[in-house]
Amino acid sequence: MNDHLYAVIMAGGIGSRLWPRSRAATPKQFLDLVGSRTMLQETVERIEPLVPLERVLVVVGEEHRKTVLEQVPGLPEENVLLEPGPRGTAPCIGLAGVVLRQRDVEATMAVFPADHRIADAAGFREAVVAADEVAQEGYLVTLGIEPDHPNTGYGYIERGSSLHKFNGHQAYEVKRFTEKPDEERARAFVESGDYYWNGGIFIWKIETILNEMEDLLPSLSAELERVAEAWPTSRRKEVLKSAWEQVPQTTIDYGIMEKASRVATVPIDVGWDDVGNWATLSALLDSDDRGNVIRGKGKVLLLDTKDSYVYVSQGRMIATIGLEDFVVVDTPDALLICPKDEAQAVRDVVQELDAREWEEYL
Amino acid sequence: MNDHLYAVIMAGGIGSRLWPRSRAATPKQFLDLVGSRTMLQETVERIEPLVPLERVLVVVGEEHRKTVLEQVPGLPEENVLLEPGPRGTAPCIGLAGVVLRQRDVEATMAVFPADHRIADAAGFREAVVAADEVAQEGYLVTLGIEPDHPNTGYGYIERGSSLHKFNGHQAYEVKRFTEKPDEERARAFVESGDYYWNGGIFIWKIETILNEMEDLLPSLSAELERVAEAWPTSRRKEVLKSAWEQVPQTTIDYGIMEKASRVATVPIDVGWDDVGNWATLSALLDSDDRGNVIRGKGKVLLLDTKDSYVYVSQGRMIATIGLEDFVVVDTPDALLICPKDEAQAVRDVVQELDAREWEEYL
Repeated sequence: MNDHLYAVIMAGGIGSRLWPRSRAATPKQFLDLVGSRTMLQETVERIEPLVPLERVLVVVGEEHRKTVLEQVPGLPEENVLLEPGPRGTAPCIGLAGVVLRQRDVEATMAVFPADHRIADAAGFREAVVAADEVAQEGYLVTLGIEPDHPNTGYGYIERGSSLHKFNGHQAYEVKRFTEKPDEERARAFVESGDYYWNGGIFIWKIETILNEMEDLLPSLSAELERVAEAWPTSRRKEVLKSAWEQVPQTTIDYGIMEKASRVATVPIDVGWDDVGNWATLSALLDSDDRGNVIRGKGKVLLLDTKDSYVYVSQGRMIATIGLEDFVVVDTPDALLICPKDEAQAVRDVVQELDAREWEEYL
Repeated sequence: MNDHLYAVIMAGGIGSRLWPRSRAATPKQFLDLVGSRTMLQETVERIEPLVPLERVLVVVGEEHRKTVLEQVPGLPEENVLLEPGPRGTAPCIGLAGVVLRQRDVEATMAVFPADHRIADAAGFREAVVAADEVAQEGYLVTLGIEPDHPNTGYGYIERGSSLHKFNGHQAYEVKRFTEKPDEERARAFVESGDYYWNGGIFIWKIETILNEMEDLLPSLSAELERVAEAWPTSRRKEVLKSAWEQVPQTTIDYGIMEKASRVATVPIDVGWDDVGNWATLSALLDSDDRGNVIRGKGKVLLLDTKDSYVYVSQGRMIATIGLEDFVVVDTPDALLICPKDEAQAVRDVVQELDAREWEEYL
């Protein structure tokens, strides 16, 4: 076990495609969408056998600080890092990096989105251990998810030459990242066997990532150093806020991974899912003999209805007739109805709510 | 004007196909489904220029007495007749008949369901005047609705030989009633030009209908006479209740109209609609440029949605994506979703709710 291994859980997303359950006040990662625990709780519990809570950091917006502490009892308060605003994954990861460096210059950080579901947690941890070992050789490591269909919504990792095996896992250098390909390319990628989905799960030594940031994102790096300097002082919050006004919006993929030289991947096949929308969520859940998934605490009456997902809030009753492959999500104040193949467009609903300034439903 | 003309409004239906707005506590006829007034209010206002409130009777279940008096201010309390329970239209009409006979032996009664919509109220009243004149000749008169499509859900009236014109309206003897024909027969009926829909609007002298009841429904007639005798006494309620335990469930169509000898019809073409289900209701209302009808006091966001009816209750928000020809009816506690062509099956939802004893949603 690496006592210098830290988990950085990024819990800042808004999960707009899972509206109206995922809302500004309680985004996806704070909901029990898949199991009986919230996705944040499952993320923490999944990694805990490897990384105790003292070494788990959660990066989140200020408004969700309390939720994090409530959902993860025992998490030290100082392990909740508050981002003044969303600036993409690069500043978020960089902040965790400079804070960790002050705690432990030998730290290795493993970055986990808070809203992924992984069926085989033990297998996942084995892969993290392997990736940690690869990281010790100075690589930026990303877990490569074995694709099982030509999804056009993900980034793809093309593997290059083999490295040796780590903790029983074959690792590869990364040849290239490709953002969301079209259908045809995605199919070719999957058929070739040389590509993995980029799930946004990274492992690297603090030193490695901060050096790469200095080279590839110098203005972000400069702001982060300013924050680092003020961190132990009473000016922490003020400087962080002003730095965040300066830092450019950048993802770690675009800003670092696609440009860095020593990038490796450890493939995983552990039942990964990013619970991207209501249709993919529904596919993860047990259905009844008509293929319907029924969740929530209210009552439902589904006549001539199949292969549909229905969530009903407490005290309410939903009746449907003649639906097939539908999504119905009923919360106390807002309701979504769409065919499953429109599930990605739920994002447009949220954008439109924003445009109309119907904040109470965001 | 016939000062002996009385209106008997039958307000006892449950409107189950308009669930979840039409509920046991507030059935269809007490809702503002079409305009800004309830259907009962529109029924009263439609006939009032011809029949003042003192001569309007409303027959209703005990639980809706208060609603009727609230919705029709000025209606004398004694004009609300309380049926102890639903027994079909024949006992309901018979009760109104014996009560009216005590007020005015020369009464003519016009029977109106409380849940019909009529676009041309003035034209309708003209036809009622005509029918009243036919009734004075001893006929049982039914208004015959000019059919505009081969509906298989209605009963049809086949006209026989012409009578003369009454109040400018041609009247006919009725040759035959046919209950809900199949598609093919319905089409033949409409094409022939000799058939009308039976809308359940009747005009007859008290004497005529009560004599027919005595001949054709003697056991009902006997019970009604028992009620009539007790009516002016303190035993009214008790006798009515015991009579209602005896009277057979019978419709006026099956029990009287199909068997009586002197039956006439006055055709009407006045934009009649029985607002039978959500799809037919929707067709009566103004739609936006995508064919959507939006009602209720909440908010809606319809993406890529057309030709649909959406009712949203206050404080709630409905988002749909990719719906076409759908019905969405959202009330504070219950929600219905179905394609328009399943609108008739809403009745099955109500039956199923009943079977499951989910009374709070009935």
